[in-house]
Amino acid sequence: MAESMTLYWCSGSPPCWRVMITLEEKNLQGYNQKLLSFEKNEQKSEEVLALNPRGQFPTFKHGDIIVNESFAACLYLESQFESQGTRLIPENPKEQALMYQRMLEGLNCYDKLNWVIYYELMVPEDERHESALKRHREALTTELKLWEGYLQNVAEGSYLAGDFSLADVIGFPNVAVAVFFGLSAERYPKLTEYYNLLKDRPSIKTSWPPYWFESKQGPEVLKDF
Amino acid sequence: MAESMTLYWCSGSPPCWRVMITLEEKNLQGYNQKLLSFEKNEQKSEEVLALNPRGQFPTFKHGDIIVNESFAACLYLESQFESQGTRLIPENPKEQALMYQRMLEGLNCYDKLNWVIYYELMVPEDERHESALKRHREALTTELKLWEGYLQNVAEGSYLAGDFSLADVIGFPNVAVAVFFGLSAERYPKLTEYYNLLKDRPSIKTSWPPYWFESKQGPEVLKDF
Repeated sequence: MAESMTLYWCSGSPPCWRVMITLEEKNLQGYNQKLLSFEKNEQKSEEVLALNPRGQFPTFKHGDIIVNESFAACLYLESQFESQGTRLIPENPKEQALMYQRMLEGLNCYDKLNWVIYYELMVPEDERHESALKRHREALTTELKLWEGYLQNVAEGSYLAGDFSLADVIGFPNVAVAVFFGLSAERYPKLTEYYNLLKDRPSIKTSWPPYWFESKQGPEVLKDF
Repeated sequence: MAESMTLYWCSGSPPCWRVMITLEEKNLQGYNQKLLSFEKNEQKSEEVLALNPRGQFPTFKHGDIIVNESFAACLYLESQFESQGTRLIPENPKEQALMYQRMLEGLNCYDKLNWVIYYELMVPEDERHESALKRHREALTTELKLWEGYLQNVAEGSYLAGDFSLADVIGFPNVAVAVFFGLSAERYPKLTEYYNLLKDRPSIKTSWPPYWFESKQGPEVLKDF
């Protein structure tokens, strides 16, 4: 089954990582991987644009089915391979609601991380303002404290919504980005504990961004948060 | 069942509208509605904050289950009431993939609409730039053309992903916002046709933003797009 799947991805992209973790958890090893370069703008190559008019990573193909949005690919894979590998959407209504809630909240966290870490990439030089950066820093601090609080309230050994689920597929890459960019273990002990609990999980370790193996620590943008 | 549900919402908010359409489609009429005011900042009231630490609309409660992110609430309701009312996630793998893809792409469209329509609300006065507005206008034009193209390729009488689905639950409010703010029927005939095809659907008509009944047309921000 996995041989009919192709993932176009780039290193260090949380949206790509989400799909890769899901493929691993669903025992879909052996899919075709095309590692392309964001720096070389290969997401706008003809090959990618033919499958993805937005010209973005990830781009994912399963036979003649194309599903490129990372959340969509994860939901599709879980639905199509529900009984294979890890069950990523809990059946119990309360756990399921929490799972969907945290999964979607993961987008807020991702956006807020991006605004702080990649402000210079996202905003042309003559439109940058100290006041905007300050506002984005405050929003990210609030966000990180929210997640630290969520993890304070989960049961011992539990992940974001009980057993490992799509909430973690989305949530872990966010936390890993924060740690890579210098998140303080003293101020965020629960996020750090969560990171340590999951970083060696096979699906995560196997799909770890190759770029991060080379430079184990990014610029410490978040160290004072 | 619906009596144990409470939705806190505000008029004219696409995220609230998504949940309301889903509740109607799943035959969950009779849920408790609390229409609050965004202008009066009631999303930050104690009552809302106790359920939703982000202080946002929608805030949704089902018994003691809380699920506030609109996509999460829609997915949760579809899963819990799968066999009740309209089936909102198709079973056929190809249709399902397209449904998830368009559903999630709906977030791109929503963001791009917001940046143009609410630029002045989202960005403090001294951080606004003509160059940023121009960039956001170009991004929205590209986005609208993409959706116009998607609709050119669907079969006659079909919605965004075949039968009515969560793709339309997310997609229709975006299109309705665009029309309310003056989208050109000449330049976007397929989006206009889609709007006309769905505007009187019971789930949509019943949950139509009350604010839009009063002023049938907003400022024509999009008329030149």
